[in-house]
Amino acid sequence: MSTESPSSGLRALLREDLRAEKPYGAPQLTVSAALNTNENSYPVPDEVVADMLAELGEALPTLNRYPDREFTSLREALSAYLTRSGTAIAPDQVWAGNGSNEVLLHLLQAFGGPGRRAIGFTPSYSMHSIIATTTGTAWTYGRRSADPERLFTLDADSVAAQIADAAPQLVFICSPNNPTGTAVGLDVIEAAYAAAPGAVVVVDEAYAEFARPGTPSALSLLAGRERLVVTRTLSKAFALAGGRLGYLAADPELVDLLRLVRMPYHLSAPSQAVARAALRHTDTMLSTVGAVKDQRDRLVTELTSLGYAPVPSDANFVLFGGLADAGHTWQGLLDRGVLVRDVGIPHYLRVTAGTPAETTAFLDALAALGPTHRINSGDTN
Amino acid sequence: MSTESPSSGLRALLREDLRAEKPYGAPQLTVSAALNTNENSYPVPDEVVADMLAELGEALPTLNRYPDREFTSLREALSAYLTRSGTAIAPDQVWAGNGSNEVLLHLLQAFGGPGRRAIGFTPSYSMHSIIATTTGTAWTYGRRSADPERLFTLDADSVAAQIADAAPQLVFICSPNNPTGTAVGLDVIEAAYAAAPGAVVVVDEAYAEFARPGTPSALSLLAGRERLVVTRTLSKAFALAGGRLGYLAADPELVDLLRLVRMPYHLSAPSQAVARAALRHTDTMLSTVGAVKDQRDRLVTELTSLGYAPVPSDANFVLFGGLADAGHTWQGLLDRGVLVRDVGIPHYLRVTAGTPAETTAFLDALAALGPTHRINSGDTN
Repeated sequence: MSTESPSSGLRALLREDLRAEKPYGAPQLTVSAALNTNENSYPVPDEVVADMLAELGEALPTLNRYPDREFTSLREALSAYLTRSGTAIAPDQVWAGNGSNEVLLHLLQAFGGPGRRAIGFTPSYSMHSIIATTTGTAWTYGRRSADPERLFTLDADSVAAQIADAAPQLVFICSPNNPTGTAVGLDVIEAAYAAAPGAVVVVDEAYAEFARPGTPSALSLLAGRERLVVTRTLSKAFALAGGRLGYLAADPELVDLLRLVRMPYHLSAPSQAVARAALRHTDTMLSTVGAVKDQRDRLVTELTSLGYAPVPSDANFVLFGGLADAGHTWQGLLDRGVLVRDVGIPHYLRVTAGTPAETTAFLDALAALGPTHRINSGDTN
Repeated sequence: MSTESPSSGLRALLREDLRAEKPYGAPQLTVSAALNTNENSYPVPDEVVADMLAELGEALPTLNRYPDREFTSLREALSAYLTRSGTAIAPDQVWAGNGSNEVLLHLLQAFGGPGRRAIGFTPSYSMHSIIATTTGTAWTYGRRSADPERLFTLDADSVAAQIADAAPQLVFICSPNNPTGTAVGLDVIEAAYAAAPGAVVVVDEAYAEFARPGTPSALSLLAGRERLVVTRTLSKAFALAGGRLGYLAADPELVDLLRLVRMPYHLSAPSQAVARAALRHTDTMLSTVGAVKDQRDRLVTELTSLGYAPVPSDANFVLFGGLADAGHTWQGLLDRGVLVRDVGIPHYLRVTAGTPAETTAFLDALAALGPTHRINSGDTN
């Protein structure tokens, strides 16, 4: 399929602001080490698969009926999981969708739209701005620190000033941030919330479970902040990307308003069943998080040894700079069976922390490419 | 949960055009005969459940990976199913979503939006106008015939004239129409297409498999009409409402443009697996269609005998008039364990054709309510 042709008669029927767009999407290629979409490299354990199948065995015969539109039992399970973090989150504070993308879509459909504006802090998860465009919401590209000592970080004063300038209806802060891996302090969230008294503030914590010890979650800020939203997903730490289950925690009234824009029965009975079974095995499903974090820390250490510049990461991936030509290195790695992500930042690539073997494959491939892939390689060799 | 309070501070943050809205949704009540959402009353057969579980057993261990974003094998299965109708439909002419609601959302996101207009012909499936509102698309309520001899029908001249007046970017024609059960002739679709040279024309055929013999599908009109779309679902004839799998057939280029607005990986791996398994058992899954149609025809006959006025139906439900007070009768039926749908048309209710026992329960309950539920009951008894 191609969407490249600008001459199409059908494309002329598209909404004007979509006509120049291209579809989002990382290549789905068959490679020996797929380290490009921050998946969890560990398969779902057999005991969890068995329990999912048992739950599905109960659900499938009655698929002739619509699913529970309010996904009551799934909400209870998500509520219980979030409450483990130390902040009590009630079931009516929880919303879910087919991946966190759909949860973000619901937020933008409800609180964004034509004549409204959202801000995010670049580089960040590109779907935030893409979904804003999908819903006709204007987008302001906020900035992160360019100071080499604090590269890609956000501080409270800068965030507050940029929000005050943009006067948005929605604020997106991704923490730990994709693609940089950078977590922000709660002071940044508090400052953002205070600077935007008429805005919904969305903290995208898709990678929260991988954060280093002492990194707080914005869940602890929800009490008393009715405009604050924390989004999460089962795709990453829970190793359930194929199950497509994203969710959020917020004020019960804000959650209730999302029913105005979701499609009725948006969560299928199998999706609800699979997620419930995964959440019943939380400890098992999260048992690989430590191993993934070890590989992430190994990536930072070894990329530094190879002469590259990895960004400190609280996620399951590492952004690293110091590349002479990121596209050239991306292709070189792919030629060696290692697929990483070119996120469009010159001289940087992003690599997922996979299994030890995948991490080794990546590091070996990068080393094999040689020092000419490094910027200023002439100076250091 | 309540969304009734207009005084909420959070509601004031909603998009202006949503603030007065209430969430869509039929009551999800536990009753002995749920005949309110046009579900198929027959459970998924054991042999199909077994095959779904086998396919899920293959898919679940790798849920750590994202699903096939382009749902290639599911498209092939949907293409093969549609081609059975006699019109060859290629895989790249097929698109799918989490229920036909999401497929309709994608169409309105791509081709509707602010400053654009869609038209439907009332009474019809209320989600068409609701999704238009969700996407900021203006909506024109077209009209159906009020002639008692042709009640709720559409003819080519009327449709063409109304479309010419509205000058829409999207046209929705539901056939067989929900909630009236009325199918339209292909001449109506051809006239709508010709009358709207700049519009995408969507024929919602969610109930197509229940149509009486000789009712043609708009699939046969797709060739040479790049702006024509036919939507379908596995929820009804395939008895898979809980699986949430809606789809459409259209020009490959139009299908490709929908990738601009869908959320990446919108169809989970379990959803794809369940739908694929159902489609492998097409004959089995559709084996209840005849029985459902028999009960539909029985409803028409017996409602007439009871002194009510059923509308001729090509779907798995019957809209019937002649009620003194539809809300009163709705409650009276519910008190007897039979849940039907008050679709907001004065003096009418809609009842799904269920199993013979459910149909009997409905007819007995209605008869037990007595002739005072009939309009002008004093004249006829």
